[in-house]
Amino acid sequence: MRRRDPKELFDAATGGDRLAVARLISLVEEGGAAAREVGRLTFPRTGNAYTVGITGAPGAGKSTLTDGLIGEVRSAGDEVGVLAVDPSSPFSGGAFLGDRVRMQDHALDPGVFIRSMASRGHLGGLSLATPEAIRVLDACGRPWVLVETVGVGQVEFEIVERADTTVVVLTPGTGDSVQANKAGLLEVADLFVINKADRAGVHELERDLRNMLEMNEALAAAAERGDAAVWRPPVVRTVATTGEGVGELWKTVRDHRAHLEAHGQLETRRARRLEDELREIVVRRLEERAYAACAGPEHDRLLRALQERRLDPWQAADALLDGVVD
Amino acid sequence: MRRRDPKELFDAATGGDRLAVARLISLVEEGGAAAREVGRLTFPRTGNAYTVGITGAPGAGKSTLTDGLIGEVRSAGDEVGVLAVDPSSPFSGGAFLGDRVRMQDHALDPGVFIRSMASRGHLGGLSLATPEAIRVLDACGRPWVLVETVGVGQVEFEIVERADTTVVVLTPGTGDSVQANKAGLLEVADLFVINKADRAGVHELERDLRNMLEMNEALAAAAERGDAAVWRPPVVRTVATTGEGVGELWKTVRDHRAHLEAHGQLETRRARRLEDELREIVVRRLEERAYAACAGPEHDRLLRALQERRLDPWQAADALLDGVVD
Repeated sequence: MRRRDPKELFDAATGGDRLAVARLISLVEEGGAAAREVGRLTFPRTGNAYTVGITGAPGAGKSTLTDGLIGEVRSAGDEVGVLAVDPSSPFSGGAFLGDRVRMQDHALDPGVFIRSMASRGHLGGLSLATPEAIRVLDACGRPWVLVETVGVGQVEFEIVERADTTVVVLTPGTGDSVQANKAGLLEVADLFVINKADRAGVHELERDLRNMLEMNEALAAAAERGDAAVWRPPVVRTVATTGEGVGELWKTVRDHRAHLEAHGQLETRRARRLEDELREIVVRRLEERAYAACAGPEHDRLLRALQERRLDPWQAADALLDGVVD
Repeated sequence: MRRRDPKELFDAATGGDRLAVARLISLVEEGGAAAREVGRLTFPRTGNAYTVGITGAPGAGKSTLTDGLIGEVRSAGDEVGVLAVDPSSPFSGGAFLGDRVRMQDHALDPGVFIRSMASRGHLGGLSLATPEAIRVLDACGRPWVLVETVGVGQVEFEIVERADTTVVVLTPGTGDSVQANKAGLLEVADLFVINKADRAGVHELERDLRNMLEMNEALAAAAERGDAAVWRPPVVRTVATTGEGVGELWKTVRDHRAHLEAHGQLETRRARRLEDELREIVVRRLEERAYAACAGPEHDRLLRALQERRLDPWQAADALLDGVVD
């Protein structure tokens, strides 16, 4: 791959060069100075794309559903960017996994841009790299960005929580609703999909879900006072492999979007997301400083004092921070 | 419980008042200013206790083994402090779990002090509170401190890694060796116990373990050059419920201690642990500053600039840190 500078890539990408888009996302993934430059270039041009996060346990059929949603967006004549984020895998860069094969139906469609993203090993990297990658697609003019995450861990959670609409995919007969509840997904879901709805256990899963939603006090209180501004997560049944229910799912995503827009909630939601991202970057920056502080001569001096028990660890930490940070 | 100040409790505890010891550990668990004061009082008097960490999957028999080790220490006429740390439970304060009942055999023995510790909800709290609690027992003159952790997650790992001798307990027929390998326990174990060694699968487990140890390049290289300073983790078989092998286990712990002392490694190991603890406290302190920084008027001003896309998140973070920290 030829090296090109971020500005050159950015100009090419916003001019419609798909390879340049892919390279910008690679730079974002790699982090460092080039990633920062990409962020500076893209950020002022963002805020137009609508993002849909799709999460759920492995094997729930997220990729097939995402494939179906791509079809829906394209039928409406819109372009779409797709990020498939796998925090547990060190591989990325278009290395499609088996269950992403179907998405390749769209690989030759210039209106569809699909990219895998994976952890490059730096802790928490994806939760900061993903919004940057979304902004690359946003700045390049994709009106819709779908973000699919594999797995249900903390990082996946952070990623999917930062979408405009968060879709949680469950399947019957797997104890998924209990897992989703434990993982806190019920709190962040804007809508639930029961995929593989042709299987046994679909009624029980839907009943469990509705029970859990009814036990949510904020939702219950809103329903009681007839507060139309509070969105109540719908449950949509799909069979992604046949396409059944996918149209209904897409309609529900658009309903949610219309709801957010009608009640001025899209803006507040995005503002809160930027605030979360800012806090996360501040923490990361301070961690970098902490590690730098723990490598200098002052640190060695304090460590000796600690070993000789002239200072306790908290006193040493405060002394270190006084010297370096204030 | 009557409130008493840390200094009063400390004087009583070092004078042999067991209730005062328990209250000091409660203060440590609760965190805050009183915990800091406890740390300041105990730290100069520490460095004499030898700590043994015991970890392994739930159901591996850690508590029964710990019970056996208490018996061994007492047979030699030494006093012992025991911390049973459960990061997944919000309960503590001597709330003994079912499998800790046997330890209560020792509850009336004044030479044995047993305490449960649990997470009080603040993230990572136990990984800082546990060394503080160990130091309370150390300062109060216990020559041995046993730290048993329940579970095999990140926090348990951090806790057990900070012992002078780290014991990893496995059981046959459970796939434990694979799990332990994945969790990184093979890297930190100073010795392995195959408990429930009267069950099927004990040979396979021991073979798997020895294979994994042989694949460790640092150990293999040390063996090749006949480097006696490198400790090679032994594998001890026990049946904790009958006491079989527990004497051998205790002898192996003392062998490891003798090895560390003979090669000057105990001191370097403890120095490295203090360094790790210092870094963790520095990170925690900086996080506190980050959260404080994200709550002032400068933050609100920068957030507006962010929302209006006049600054990107990294620029805003840097501006925030310049204003508050430098």
